[in-house]
Amino acid sequence: MADLMSNDMFLAFSKYATIVVLKMMFMAPLTGYFRITRKEDRKKMLQTNPDVERVRRCHQNDLENIISFVVIGLLYAFTGPDLSTALLHFQVFVGSRFIHTVSYLLALPQPSRGLSWVVGIITTFSMAYRVLTTALFL
Amino acid sequence: MADLMSNDMFLAFSKYATIVVLKMMFMAPLTGYFRITRKEDRKKMLQTNPDVERVRRCHQNDLENIISFVVIGLLYAFTGPDLSTALLHFQVFVGSRFIHTVSYLLALPQPSRGLSWVVGIITTFSMAYRVLTTALFL
Amino acid sequence: MADLMSNDMFLAFSKYATIVVLKMMFMAPLTGYFRITRKEDRKKMLQTNPDVERVRRCHQNDLENIISFVVIGLLYAFTGPDLSTALLHFQVFVGSRFIHTVSYLLALPQPSRGLSWVVGIITTFSMAYRVLTTALFL
Repeated sequence: MADLMSNDMFLAFSKYATIVVLKMMFMAPLTGYFRITRKEDRKKMLQTNPDVERVRRCHQNDLENIISFVVIGLLYAFTGPDLSTALLHFQVFVGSRFIHTVSYLLALPQPSRGLSWVVGIITTFSMAYRVLTTALFL
Repeated sequence: MADLMSNDMFLAFSKYATIVVLKMMFMAPLTGYFRITRKEDRKKMLQTNPDVERVRRCHQNDLENIISFVVIGLLYAFTGPDLSTALLHFQVFVGSRFIHTVSYLLALPQPSRGLSWVVGIITTFSMAYRVLTTALFL
Repeated sequence: MADLMSNDMFLAFSKYATIVVLKMMFMAPLTGYFRITRKEDRKKMLQTNPDVERVRRCHQNDLENIISFVVIGLLYAFTGPDLSTALLHFQVFVGSRFIHTVSYLLALPQPSRGLSWVVGIITTFSMAYRVLTTALFL
């Protein structure tokens, strides 16, 4: 079992998957912070604050996209791609999610948010394509 | 590491997990499409459109169920089931999620949606049962 | 492939990951039960019932936290920790999520819910720390 962790590919995936999951986990305390500073809790959800809603939607978008990345990225790591190609996929995805979060939270003008989201999707599709061709035509 | 990808069971799991995750990813642009065609964005979330809400709930239901399948299905693949039994589980689950999505989006009369949801749950339980018996009584 | 399932560490992870995912899956029928008993469905989402909302938020919180645990816990299991240390992490996390769910659903006075949530987060961080140190400084 320790063999897997001496494999460069698996190490690279572990590193980037952990970083991006930690980033996602950071959204929860951030929501709490916004809820307290925007005093949303006082009236028990009768009113929703637009800032709090923005953090929540950003968290939800993370959930949807990071899950896809983690599942497809793990399978992709086992298809034996070049290490440099795999690193490029992992780094572009993780970078795109950080840019997405910053664009969302600071409400930067579009297309910064939309573009970073699309880049993450394309990276995941590219890995899914390799997994499917490996799994279907081996 | 490449050994795993020459394993039929792991290939089968990779194939179906990737297909069902790609299906889930398709819900995000679909939500965007509905939001634009139903003009939900114009008033900044003050009003919600029932069609847009339906796509969102379908996406959320996908998230909840597909995550369970991916986690339990991966562990199940390592318990050494018959390949034909495993394929049956994977295919029934993925089929049930496609039927679920179509039933949800076209608002087909119940129990089409409820039934397809239950079939997916039962498939996941069946795999979880095997994982637990393997993990507990080895 | 069967080798992995004869590994105590992987078995331990499989057991606790499956248990906590099954717990999460249980939230969906529970939401349905609350929706029926609180008659939320009658007016098609025009009104939301606070009890139903509580189950939904608990489910969402499960999704966010259990995904992080499953991803980071799987990678952690491959870093070769002591079996007893790993078991402690897995058990504390799973226990904290059960306490969290009970606190949420019964609306127990704080800090029961907040504390159980924090304990789960700390457990996940502790495993993420080991994954990152292994992946970065090998």
